[in-house]
Amino acid sequence: MSQKKTPEIIAEPRVVLERSREWRSAGKSVGFVPTMGSLHAGHMSLVDRSVSDCDRTVVSIYVNPTQFGEGEDLSKYPRSFDEDLAKCAGAGVDVVFAPSDEVMYLKDHSTFVEVGGLTQVMCGLSRPGHFRGVTTIVAKLLNIVQPDAAYFGQKDAQQLAVVARMVRDLDIPVQIIGMPIVREADGLAMSSRNKYLSKPDRSAALCLKRALDAGSALIDGGEVSGQLVAAAMAEVVVAVASAELDYAMVVDPVTMDDVEEIDREVMLALAVWIGSTRLIDNCLAEPK
Amino acid sequence: MSQKKTPEIIAEPRVVLERSREWRSAGKSVGFVPTMGSLHAGHMSLVDRSVSDCDRTVVSIYVNPTQFGEGEDLSKYPRSFDEDLAKCAGAGVDVVFAPSDEVMYLKDHSTFVEVGGLTQVMCGLSRPGHFRGVTTIVAKLLNIVQPDAAYFGQKDAQQLAVVARMVRDLDIPVQIIGMPIVREADGLAMSSRNKYLSKPDRSAALCLKRALDAGSALIDGGEVSGQLVAAAMAEVVVAVASAELDYAMVVDPVTMDDVEEIDREVMLALAVWIGSTRLIDNCLAEPK
Repeated sequence: MSQKKTPEIIAEPRVVLERSREWRSAGKSVGFVPTMGSLHAGHMSLVDRSVSDCDRTVVSIYVNPTQFGEGEDLSKYPRSFDEDLAKCAGAGVDVVFAPSDEVMYLKDHSTFVEVGGLTQVMCGLSRPGHFRGVTTIVAKLLNIVQPDAAYFGQKDAQQLAVVARMVRDLDIPVQIIGMPIVREADGLAMSSRNKYLSKPDRSAALCLKRALDAGSALIDGGEVSGQLVAAAMAEVVVAVASAELDYAMVVDPVTMDDVEEIDREVMLALAVWIGSTRLIDNCLAEPK
Repeated sequence: MSQKKTPEIIAEPRVVLERSREWRSAGKSVGFVPTMGSLHAGHMSLVDRSVSDCDRTVVSIYVNPTQFGEGEDLSKYPRSFDEDLAKCAGAGVDVVFAPSDEVMYLKDHSTFVEVGGLTQVMCGLSRPGHFRGVTTIVAKLLNIVQPDAAYFGQKDAQQLAVVARMVRDLDIPVQIIGMPIVREADGLAMSSRNKYLSKPDRSAALCLKRALDAGSALIDGGEVSGQLVAAAMAEVVVAVASAELDYAMVVDPVTMDDVEEIDREVMLALAVWIGSTRLIDNCLAEPK
């Protein structure tokens, strides 16, 4: 699977666009994986899929400041460029796009892309402005890379839904592909933010997966009330002293609207603070 | 100059994208003129320039509802598709893109592109939401047409500045080209909205050009106060009984910021109500 090659490292948007256009002119398909670096097995599953689907793969490594709120973890967000690069090389990535803030946001930058509705719930409530930052940087990156397909992790399910909505609404000619959550052996969803967790926090963090399992089990057992399933998930989290629930919800996987009666596929979604680290997780579930 | 050909009329975004990609694969450059139809000599100067600059030209004809405010002239905006088509044919246009509202804005459309700062003054003040509608539809159209260059009239100078800012900020790979205002023999700037004017209103409307001339003459004469020049322009308009001034301003042509001291090229800009018709006009001026 892994086809070692040295990716070209590009900092200039213009050069990435040039490369992408050269490839396209030569009839090559282009896959794109936008990341904030600190690459883990979740990211690499996206990269592997892109390398396998497309003739050329671009990975962007850019910690986007506009998707962090005041007091969030922008400055301490983990950065590991050399390791990330080695992983990209191992996976057969063609270009790593690693721009500076100065290039991505000019001093008088004043344009933002905003998706209404499904950004106003869940993580959008806890992190005002977050999704505006996400959609703006993703729009920029898609314009720069001009990919045929872009790969996103289902772990950030609301982000995936928001990006898909933006791409549809703005007619951006790219296929958005969501990939399954990758988990540690004990069930914790892979996240760059797991690095923040102390040993006891790491153990407390398992309550997210346990809560999802509890919710899924209820639905498997015939429960159809979204509210009851959400409450059962919340209960699992609340029982853990070092965990603080942000939200536990049963929602429509496309619109992120609350589901009252579980009569179709739904998403169980959680956000939980473990100490000063905010973790999210989710799964899909179908009524019997 | 005019090279009569029958343009292909396309209603489906997907088909326009296909056509544009075919052209690009064949090494052809693509020019694009977005319009709301009701084509006049101003539009046609953009079309001629695109046809002369580019191998292929797409003209969109679409009265975009999201750039009209409540109580504005969306429903009565002039529509003349057959004449527009004949003009496009005469000018050598390759594709006329004429989509329906249903295709451009799905029922649950919820994504908007917004430029801050320079949209909050002048026409942005009088027409809240207008520029958000403009940037959203232009972003969509650029994604659908994928042109190398897009042509806009300098008559809508603030629109041109806002679109240029959006394209820069979102890294949209297109060259935005502004083209000079085209005027009637008596000086009235060409506008689709001129069709609304009664005979006496048509004559009153000449106060816009007279006001710009008065402002320019002051600057030619050495006046360096933006405020005084703006006041002189306003005075010309206010003297006309059937004219009502919206704004008269001396601004920076890129940021649309008010200019206090005219020490560089500035834009004189006006918006005036003539009865129920709102007209705009502008010109550039440089200090001696």
